[in-house]
Amino acid sequence: MGVVVNLENGKREPASIKPLVELTAADMGRVNELILSRAGSDVELIPEVANHLISSGGKRLRPMVTLAAAQMFGYSGDGHVKLATSVEFMHTATLLHDDVVDESDMRRGRKTARMIWGNQASVLVGDFLLGQAFRMMVDVGSIDALDILSSAASIIAEGEVMQLTAAKNLDTTEDEYFSVIKAKTAALFSAAAEVGPVIAGASRADRNALRSYGVNLGLAFQLIDDALDYGGSSTDLGKNVGDDFREGKVTLPVILSYRRGTTAERQFWKAAIEGSEADDAALEKAIGLMTRHGAITDTIARARHFGDIARDALAPLETTRQKAALIEVIEFCISRVN
Amino acid sequence: MGVVVNLENGKREPASIKPLVELTAADMGRVNELILSRAGSDVELIPEVANHLISSGGKRLRPMVTLAAAQMFGYSGDGHVKLATSVEFMHTATLLHDDVVDESDMRRGRKTARMIWGNQASVLVGDFLLGQAFRMMVDVGSIDALDILSSAASIIAEGEVMQLTAAKNLDTTEDEYFSVIKAKTAALFSAAAEVGPVIAGASRADRNALRSYGVNLGLAFQLIDDALDYGGSSTDLGKNVGDDFREGKVTLPVILSYRRGTTAERQFWKAAIEGSEADDAALEKAIGLMTRHGAITDTIARARHFGDIARDALAPLETTRQKAALIEVIEFCISRVN
Repeated sequence: MGVVVNLENGKREPASIKPLVELTAADMGRVNELILSRAGSDVELIPEVANHLISSGGKRLRPMVTLAAAQMFGYSGDGHVKLATSVEFMHTATLLHDDVVDESDMRRGRKTARMIWGNQASVLVGDFLLGQAFRMMVDVGSIDALDILSSAASIIAEGEVMQLTAAKNLDTTEDEYFSVIKAKTAALFSAAAEVGPVIAGASRADRNALRSYGVNLGLAFQLIDDALDYGGSSTDLGKNVGDDFREGKVTLPVILSYRRGTTAERQFWKAAIEGSEADDAALEKAIGLMTRHGAITDTIARARHFGDIARDALAPLETTRQKAALIEVIEFCISRVN
Repeated sequence: MGVVVNLENGKREPASIKPLVELTAADMGRVNELILSRAGSDVELIPEVANHLISSGGKRLRPMVTLAAAQMFGYSGDGHVKLATSVEFMHTATLLHDDVVDESDMRRGRKTARMIWGNQASVLVGDFLLGQAFRMMVDVGSIDALDILSSAASIIAEGEVMQLTAAKNLDTTEDEYFSVIKAKTAALFSAAAEVGPVIAGASRADRNALRSYGVNLGLAFQLIDDALDYGGSSTDLGKNVGDDFREGKVTLPVILSYRRGTTAERQFWKAAIEGSEADDAALEKAIGLMTRHGAITDTIARARHFGDIARDALAPLETTRQKAALIEVIEFCISRVN
């Protein structure tokens, strides 16, 4: 795992997002134009706030998945570009609201919009982007795609509320954690993937395959994100390490460490996560306990489990460059952790 | 004005919302059921927060407008019930977010959701209700209705951002104020009215008539709301009087008083609205200045102007009980101020 064979010289190379980027490059050019025009408004504050986040260098993985999934079934219109843009706007709206809910100061190495323009602008510009997302979907005119994406919007919000309820609660079970990430993260990946075959008029089996791919890719993606928040499997800590810890988020690395820990260790977790003793020394200790109990390793193992399901979901489909790129992206997401 | 003729005994009676309530009573029963079921979720916090606001005794004017507008053109399915519920959910979502943006403590005489469950829950449950609103519209399956309502969602958010930008700015012109209330309030009334003829398959002229009715009713409604925040034309101050003043909102009564005032008065307004000197004594003085300059009277006159346009918008339509009820509701909204 963690590698793909490069056919030209037989050398193994790390999994990459490149094939997906290349296949969708032309369409993504149109998505990026649409993002700029639909985030526009005569109300100057709107493009200012929206573009701050939009231009902050996200990978735009979700819209690329939509584009590749539509291409895969021979779609030739321009609906996939609009749906991909809608998906990215839904994601951006969620991030703007998330930062308000989590009281976050930084995202992608930059100040969050709420730190620059305030919570008020972040809430309202998020609402605007969500409205624009729906307008674009309506423009495409596919009731099935509308159904999938509007359901995802509800489910994402439901997942965020679930997460709020579970915050700082160490009794959260692994199953409850999976329910949260399935709703708050995997639902949008699932919708992003499924609307591709939907507008291409593909079969029910093809729709189900892409939906299953999306939901499992999303679960793997979030698990790795949660592992990365504690430095992943690397000893080299990235700059965002510890955000979840300081916010008292009960993610899988914490759940596993808490459940596998001694009584004294559980006391530590309670003070750190449910209390307010989450300083740098506590973070270092937390990472130590995670290592001792294999909590990061097993979080990654869970991600691989879902990644494998995502891969098998696409297995029956005809071999295409799109299929290969979507499969490689699973491994790319998981190998971010190394 | 302010009265309608009761045909039975020739006595003039005040304009009432009753005919609209009675005509839509059966359908509103179904709307209320749908509200309860679609605000439901296994995530307990969601119905808790949603129902707090939903059960707080709003008039549900917007969904009644949708129902009457559909009935008026002989609609016989159940799509109007879903669209009316969507409209009410969009309104509720906006209120939840508004209270966060305005940092409001009270609404309709009760603590706001954000005071009980926090800003976080208010933002996220608002998002959930918006998602549910879209799901119901998609369920109805009318692309035209979806187009109208999703456009309204963007425009409302745009209006809220405009209002945020204009906050505490006494240079706001009357025209800018109208742009704000047209977007933040009238757009939803307009959409609520227009989707009625749309799902009933009425003509383009009928759609335009109802849209024009809705937007002008919405403008009149918001103007009266803004007058009521300074006690309306009554000397008996209601319990919410002064909220806009304390929040530094630049509404029409303030715009007119500021523009018509002396240099000394403008200093007072700057200290109160742009500064923080908005205590009870300042509020009393503000109301005195509004009276002196006819600012409340003229705000009501502007409302009557839009109310008249709303009435004339419906004039060419066939006489029906629905048409009479919708016309009477214009005067009812305006006469709240007496």
